[in-house]
Amino acid sequence: MMDVIFYNASQVVTVASGGRARSGAEMRDIGVIEDGAVAIKDGKFTYVGPSDGIDISDADRSINAFGKTLLPGLVDSHTHLVFAGAREEEFARRIAGATYAEIAASGGGINTTVKATRAASKIELIEYALHRLDSCLGFGATTVEIKSGYGLDFENEIKMLEVINELKDLHVVEIIPTFLGAHTIPFDYKERREEYLRLVLDEMLPEVASRGLAEYCDVFVEKGAFSLDEGREIFTKARDLGLKVRVHADQITPGGGSELAADMQAASADHLDNISDEGIARMKASGTVATLLPGVSLFLGEEYPDARRLIDAGLPVSVATDVNPGSCMSENMQLMMSLAALQMRMTMEEVITASTINAAAAVDRAATHGSIEEGKQADLLMFDTPNFQRILYHYGVNHLNTVVKHGNVVMEKRYANA
Amino acid sequence: MMDVIFYNASQVVTVASGGRARSGAEMRDIGVIEDGAVAIKDGKFTYVGPSDGIDISDADRSINAFGKTLLPGLVDSHTHLVFAGAREEEFARRIAGATYAEIAASGGGINTTVKATRAASKIELIEYALHRLDSCLGFGATTVEIKSGYGLDFENEIKMLEVINELKDLHVVEIIPTFLGAHTIPFDYKERREEYLRLVLDEMLPEVASRGLAEYCDVFVEKGAFSLDEGREIFTKARDLGLKVRVHADQITPGGGSELAADMQAASADHLDNISDEGIARMKASGTVATLLPGVSLFLGEEYPDARRLIDAGLPVSVATDVNPGSCMSENMQLMMSLAALQMRMTMEEVITASTINAAAAVDRAATHGSIEEGKQADLLMFDTPNFQRILYHYGVNHLNTVVKHGNVVMEKRYANA
Repeated sequence: MMDVIFYNASQVVTVASGGRARSGAEMRDIGVIEDGAVAIKDGKFTYVGPSDGIDISDADRSINAFGKTLLPGLVDSHTHLVFAGAREEEFARRIAGATYAEIAASGGGINTTVKATRAASKIELIEYALHRLDSCLGFGATTVEIKSGYGLDFENEIKMLEVINELKDLHVVEIIPTFLGAHTIPFDYKERREEYLRLVLDEMLPEVASRGLAEYCDVFVEKGAFSLDEGREIFTKARDLGLKVRVHADQITPGGGSELAADMQAASADHLDNISDEGIARMKASGTVATLLPGVSLFLGEEYPDARRLIDAGLPVSVATDVNPGSCMSENMQLMMSLAALQMRMTMEEVITASTINAAAAVDRAATHGSIEEGKQADLLMFDTPNFQRILYHYGVNHLNTVVKHGNVVMEKRYANA
Repeated sequence: MMDVIFYNASQVVTVASGGRARSGAEMRDIGVIEDGAVAIKDGKFTYVGPSDGIDISDADRSINAFGKTLLPGLVDSHTHLVFAGAREEEFARRIAGATYAEIAASGGGINTTVKATRAASKIELIEYALHRLDSCLGFGATTVEIKSGYGLDFENEIKMLEVINELKDLHVVEIIPTFLGAHTIPFDYKERREEYLRLVLDEMLPEVASRGLAEYCDVFVEKGAFSLDEGREIFTKARDLGLKVRVHADQITPGGGSELAADMQAASADHLDNISDEGIARMKASGTVATLLPGVSLFLGEEYPDARRLIDAGLPVSVATDVNPGSCMSENMQLMMSLAALQMRMTMEEVITASTINAAAAVDRAATHGSIEEGKQADLLMFDTPNFQRILYHYGVNHLNTVVKHGNVVMEKRYANA
C-alpha cells in the first residue's frame, strides 16, 4: 500500500539524472513522461512511470493530476533570508539614481542590515524567517540554503546560525545552513581588518564546526570584500574543520573567485557575472556548479550573467533567488525561472534542470534530491498547468497547486468555499 | 451608519488629484496619510483622513488595518485578455533565438491566436477570460480595459466584443471594452488589404457603435500593421460614430502614432518605446496619457521605454500589463509596478500614480476612479505591508490582503484553518 499516488498527470518532469548534476546538452534532456504517475511510500518515490503501469487503488490517497504537471521540489541554493530590518528607503534612493556601491559607501547597504540583525532577538529573527520560508515554499522551494553573514561578530554570527538551525524544526522546508562570517568587513572592524579575519578563523569557525552549526562555509570573494588569499585561508581552515565550501565569486570583477572555488572543490560558485575563461575551465574540471542569480540583475538594474556562455562551455548551471534585503528582495523561484528564460536565454528545459537537479547538486544533494526517481526523497510539486513550459511562459503568476515534502502533502491550494 | 470603515492603516495612499491625470513633479505627490482611515457608504468614499477623525463604531463592519497600507484599486488600462490558444511553443522558439518578427513571418505569432480565437465558442472564451480576470483582481486590478482584435473578421470581432461585454455581468472587475479590429491585417486578408479596411470601416465600426459594444476604438499604428493614414481614417470614423480613441503607437518605430493620438484627442497612447520629441510635445498639448508596458520589454527581452524622458517632459505616464499571449503573458500589475521602478527608474511615488489615477485617466475615469477621495467610487486595496514602498521593493510576491470594489469587499485573504 502506497502513501500517495499522483496519476493522470499531463506531464511528469522527472529530470532523472542518475543522481548527478547535468551539464551541456544534457541540461535539455529532462525526461518528460506524458500521462504519468508517481507513487510515494515512506518518504520516497516508489514508482515513476505511465499512469497505466500502476494500480491507483493501492494507496491511502490517490490524487488525480489530470491537466497538471509534476516537477521535483525546487531547490533554492542561495539565500540570506534570516535578517532584520527592511531597506525600502535605500531602494528608493537607488531608483532615484544612487548606485549600490554609493549607498554602501555612505554607511547604508549591508551595514543597515547588520545593525538591525544584531539588535534583533532570536525570536524576532525566527518570526521574520518563517514568513519568508512560507513564501519560498509557496512558490515551490522545498529545500533552501540559508547563510549567516549579517551578524559579523562572534555572538551574532553564532546567533544567526542557531536561528537557521532552529528553523529546521519549525518549518517544513528543508534547510541547509551556511556560515558566511566572511560576508564583508563590518563597519566596526573597518580599521581592524586583520582582527576580524582572526575572529573568523580562530573563533567563529571552530565554534561553528564543533557545534555542527553549518554544513558550508561561504566567502564573498570580491574587491571591497575579501581577497583571494583571505578566501583561501578561510576555506582551507573550514575544510580542515570538516565544512564544505561554496563561494560568492566574480560578481563585480573577474577576481579569481571561481578559480578558487575550483581549487577548494566547492559545491557551487555563485553570481559569476564576470567569470574568466580560466575560471570556467577550472570549475568544469572540479565539477563545481555555476549558480546564477537573475533576480539580482533585475533588482539592481544590471546586466544578467551570461548563462549561454557557461552552459555552452559545459558547466552545470543552476538558478537561485539570492533572497536578501539589499540586492534581491524576492523569494519567488518561479519568477527567477521565468527570468532565466526571458532574460538569460536559457531554454525552458535548461531552466528546469537548473532549478532542480543542478540546484540540488549545488548543495551536494543530487543523489537524494532534485529529481523524480525511484528511491529518491519524495519532494514533489503539482502545478496547475498542462505542461512545464507554461509555468515559465505565464510569468509572474503562481501556478503551484500542491507541495509534497519528504512524502508528506504539506501544502494544497485552497478553493473558495472549501 | 457607514458600510465599511478601514482604520489604523499605517498608510492611506490617497493619490488625491482633483479628478485628473498628474504629470511631471505632481506624479511624486501621492498624498500619504499616516494612521489613516477610510469610510465607505453606498459604493463611495465618505471619509478619508486620520483614524482619530472618525467613529469606528459607526459602521456595519470595521476593519483594523494596523501595519497595513491602503491604495486605490489599480486600473489596468491595456489588456488583450480574451483569447483562446496558448503559445508556449512559440515562446520556446523565441528563447532559442527566433525574433518576434521572424515568428510572425513564419505564420506564427498573432495568427495562431486569431485561428484559435475564431475556432473557440463564446463560452470557451468567457471561461478563459474569467480565469484571467481572477488573476488580475488577485493582484489588485479592480478596473480592466479589454480589447478585441483576435477575431479580425466581422463575425469574430463582434463575438469577442459580445464576450467582453458579457464579462461585465460575470465578474466583479469593472471592464472597459475596446474595439481593436485594426490590430493587424489577418492572414486571410493578406492579399486583400483594402477589403479588410472597408470591413473595419463600413461594417464592423457601425455595428460596434450601434450596439454599444465598445467604449474605445484602438488601432495598432505601426510599420507592418496600419499606416498613419489608415489609422486616421479609422479613428475619424470611430469618433463620428461616438467612440473614443486610444492608440498602439511608436512601439517598434517612431511612426507618428503618438502625433496621431494627440490629433484624435486619444485618452491614451500606448507602448511609445520609440516616441519622437514632436510626439511628446503633441501629446502633452492634447492631454493624452502615455501608457508604458514594461512587461512587454521583459517578455521580449528588449529595451524598456524611456519613462524618465516622458515624465521629465511633463507627460502623464501610466503603467499597464498588456496581458496577451504573444508579448506579455502576465496579469500581475504589482510586478509591472516593480518593473517600472527597477527597470524604468520611475520613483516609487511615480509608479503609484501611474497605476492608479493616471491609469484611470488613460480610460477617461480620473473623475471617478484611481484615487481615494470623498465622493469617488470606493475601489480600495489593503496590502500586508507597512508602507507602499514595500509592495514594489519586495517584488514578485503578492502583498494583497483585501479588495473592495464599488464599496463591496470582494476579496479577502484566506487564512489557514479559517
